[in-house]
Amino acid sequence: MARLTGRMVIGFERVAGTGTAIRAVDPRSGERLDPEYRYGGEAEVERACALAEDAFDTYRATSPERRAAFLEAVAAKLDDLTEALVERATAETGLPVPRVTGEVARTTGQLRLFAGDLRAGGDVAVDPAGDAGPEVRQGRVALGPVAVFGASNFPLAFSVAGGDTASALAAGCPVIVKAHDAHPGTCELAGRAVSDAVREAGLPEGVFSMLYGDGPALGIALVTDPRVQAVGFTGSRAAGLAIAKAAANRPRPIPVYAEMSSVNPVFLLPEALAEGGGELAEAYVGSVTLGAGQFCTNPGLVFAVRGAVLDAFLDAAAQAIAADQGAPMLTSAIARAYAQGVERLERHPGVEILARGKEPDAAVGGAAALAAVDAEHFGPELQEEIFGACSLVVRCANLDQVRELARGLEGQLTATIHAAPGDREAADRLLPVLERLAGRIVWDGWPTGVRVGHAMVHGGPFPATSDSRTTSVGSLAIERFQRPVAYQGARR
Amino acid sequence: MARLTGRMVIGFERVAGTGTAIRAVDPRSGERLDPEYRYGGEAEVERACALAEDAFDTYRATSPERRAAFLEAVAAKLDDLTEALVERATAETGLPVPRVTGEVARTTGQLRLFAGDLRAGGDVAVDPAGDAGPEVRQGRVALGPVAVFGASNFPLAFSVAGGDTASALAAGCPVIVKAHDAHPGTCELAGRAVSDAVREAGLPEGVFSMLYGDGPALGIALVTDPRVQAVGFTGSRAAGLAIAKAAANRPRPIPVYAEMSSVNPVFLLPEALAEGGGELAEAYVGSVTLGAGQFCTNPGLVFAVRGAVLDAFLDAAAQAIAADQGAPMLTSAIARAYAQGVERLERHPGVEILARGKEPDAAVGGAAALAAVDAEHFGPELQEEIFGACSLVVRCANLDQVRELARGLEGQLTATIHAAPGDREAADRLLPVLERLAGRIVWDGWPTGVRVGHAMVHGGPFPATSDSRTTSVGSLAIERFQRPVAYQGARR
Repeated sequence: MARLTGRMVIGFERVAGTGTAIRAVDPRSGERLDPEYRYGGEAEVERACALAEDAFDTYRATSPERRAAFLEAVAAKLDDLTEALVERATAETGLPVPRVTGEVARTTGQLRLFAGDLRAGGDVAVDPAGDAGPEVRQGRVALGPVAVFGASNFPLAFSVAGGDTASALAAGCPVIVKAHDAHPGTCELAGRAVSDAVREAGLPEGVFSMLYGDGPALGIALVTDPRVQAVGFTGSRAAGLAIAKAAANRPRPIPVYAEMSSVNPVFLLPEALAEGGGELAEAYVGSVTLGAGQFCTNPGLVFAVRGAVLDAFLDAAAQAIAADQGAPMLTSAIARAYAQGVERLERHPGVEILARGKEPDAAVGGAAALAAVDAEHFGPELQEEIFGACSLVVRCANLDQVRELARGLEGQLTATIHAAPGDREAADRLLPVLERLAGRIVWDGWPTGVRVGHAMVHGGPFPATSDSRTTSVGSLAIERFQRPVAYQGARR
Repeated sequence: MARLTGRMVIGFERVAGTGTAIRAVDPRSGERLDPEYRYGGEAEVERACALAEDAFDTYRATSPERRAAFLEAVAAKLDDLTEALVERATAETGLPVPRVTGEVARTTGQLRLFAGDLRAGGDVAVDPAGDAGPEVRQGRVALGPVAVFGASNFPLAFSVAGGDTASALAAGCPVIVKAHDAHPGTCELAGRAVSDAVREAGLPEGVFSMLYGDGPALGIALVTDPRVQAVGFTGSRAAGLAIAKAAANRPRPIPVYAEMSSVNPVFLLPEALAEGGGELAEAYVGSVTLGAGQFCTNPGLVFAVRGAVLDAFLDAAAQAIAADQGAPMLTSAIARAYAQGVERLERHPGVEILARGKEPDAAVGGAAALAAVDAEHFGPELQEEIFGACSLVVRCANLDQVRELARGLEGQLTATIHAAPGDREAADRLLPVLERLAGRIVWDGWPTGVRVGHAMVHGGPFPATSDSRTTSVGSLAIERFQRPVAYQGARR
């Protein structure tokens, strides 16, 4: 396995930090993992930003073909590293081998998708010369160096070489990643791979750097550095809002693409619920408990009309939850927050805990939970995301109440409708509400699983993200890091 | 001529305000014009926002064809009103008849361009169903009611039925305009035309409202109303930043598209300057003095290498400025700010005033001004926009210094290069700097005159605008008011 050194990646240098020391923890065993990583500080931010700025004009001027080949080279390096990545990432996150193996493929698939997009090019708007004036041709210019903050729950696909980095690099922007404390070794492996690909492609070293550091200190220093021109972030609402605020208060504000929190409401319409029966309940619990529920697209809220059919669904779901064996959670902080979230539900006067799963056989983890509440007791406090395998079913009096509650929800990444042909009218009335609520509408499925493709939107209204006009997965993600420029008149 | 009533447009109602009374002033004569307009307040904001929210779901669900026909109906109504609009707008702004006549055509042309864009549709990204999962299809959803703040210098094209309103309506968003105090009568005419078109098209009345009111009070009330989902603004940097701040501090922040200030640097490369001679100087002064210089694209700064050729250019430009007859300015506040700006230049130790034009034969106005400064004395204080017919030429030691100064400029709407074939190398080195500086690059022309077309970008890095990723003129403007939504799975 590739040897880990505990060093940061600053351009082509491998630099040891001198600040706070951290180590990864294996949530399965609680064991602290080697090597030690030490935080960087001002000097490392300065060096990475200076290199990125130096690299920017050269890098953004590369041809789409050259950037495509570079992205593919990164993908090939990650493929070659699969074994090491899987070994280290499973140890750092407790995620199972097949999941992490799939995530490597998802990450390299996204890099290759963007390479294909670069080769395919796009329509260029041109207004020809004529009575209205000289020719005007629209181009796109990369924004500048981008700071990327990855998430704990996707140590590859939303981390060092994940969607934010891949789309920024595709756009022509140098990238500086703040590595995630929860999987520093996986970060090191991926970060070195990107840096090596930069060197082998003959690109300037400042195209990529990766620093370890404290979020409020090094992270905010990156966001407020005048050379940084945009930010990609996936994580908690508190951290995302702090970054967005710091960026808005710069002398020259910059865009922040922060994906923050979502409870991904699911609407089970009456006919679909009756038709779906126990299978529907099993599929629901499968989505809730997948990866110990640690997905931003986890279905945390379900709305349905009360009655015998819903009771049967809840019985079946409760049985499935009770049978759940549990799985390790990513970090003890996440497990603690999960436990507190479930406790809040338990203490809520209107909420009934229908079932708990088993405690996982792991040092860090929590039991799955299924809860229900009558609509009369549903309030904003029950909209808060509980990150983990927990879901709350809201029993409504009728479809009007379902729609009314949907209208009161905060912005979401996804909204899901289960609708049989007999539910058509209800679905027609609900859909406009959901279109205003979410970035992705799922019909008759479950929100977990975000397909990497041209049409995907992984985004949504505030507070699901800080900018609903974009996506962090899929082809449209590239445009976030560019701006349009019009070229007027023919150059002699 | 269509009779003016002094009333606001709230849906299909015509409502008299009860607040502060204002009247337009004819800057040619200083005469106060009838009728009186009174400001609205909280009640009118509430009513307009409630109507807009009520209209939104119906309006956004209209077919592109229906919205196209509606935009064309607005255009037809404005065409029919041309005589009245020209009479009133020339009185309220002092702009000459041909200019205002052209501006009506520009406004209706933009509405028709967007109608054409709606009919043409666009590519829809689709990932077909397969091993990777169910079909994912990307759509676009309108953001919601939009608040529009027009500019004083384009009483039609950047006002009630101007680019922001037209693009928001095309996108499927209801619009609430805050009418501009400097041309309230022109606003009333245009606002009634839009409202009448809404009614005749059978659309809900809340699709359009227009209020008179105080910027810091009624304006900020609009921006912070929870039903308003985006803002279009053209005007001063102070007002734009106040609006952006209010929007960012909402519980749910919303996008603000504020076009604020720009000095539109022009770079005259040596061969082009030598080749251009007196004609180039005349064209320059023509662009500086057009419309008394009251354009956001006015060329306020010129960079060139010092020497005999530049001296000759400056002599010719000074002659042309001295011969300028002047023209009324829009408002006494603008004329005062212009006089103060020129005074600041005069007092600046490094700046030399090369020529002044004649004082216009008008109650409100100021004389054109041409100034020069050696690069050694150029500083950030000389980058500030002086709104009016004033331009400053920076005499540089060499092309490296030109590029260095360009690098230090703030974000701009435009950057212009004059380059003969012999300037190719210098242009190659300058272009990347300008691409980072501006939203539009003009070759061998002048920045005034913004063509309404598919490719135009009227935008640029902060502080030219608050969001460099968009444009306020041209087809791309429509997308600002929508967000992408993915539809996953086939609806049964």
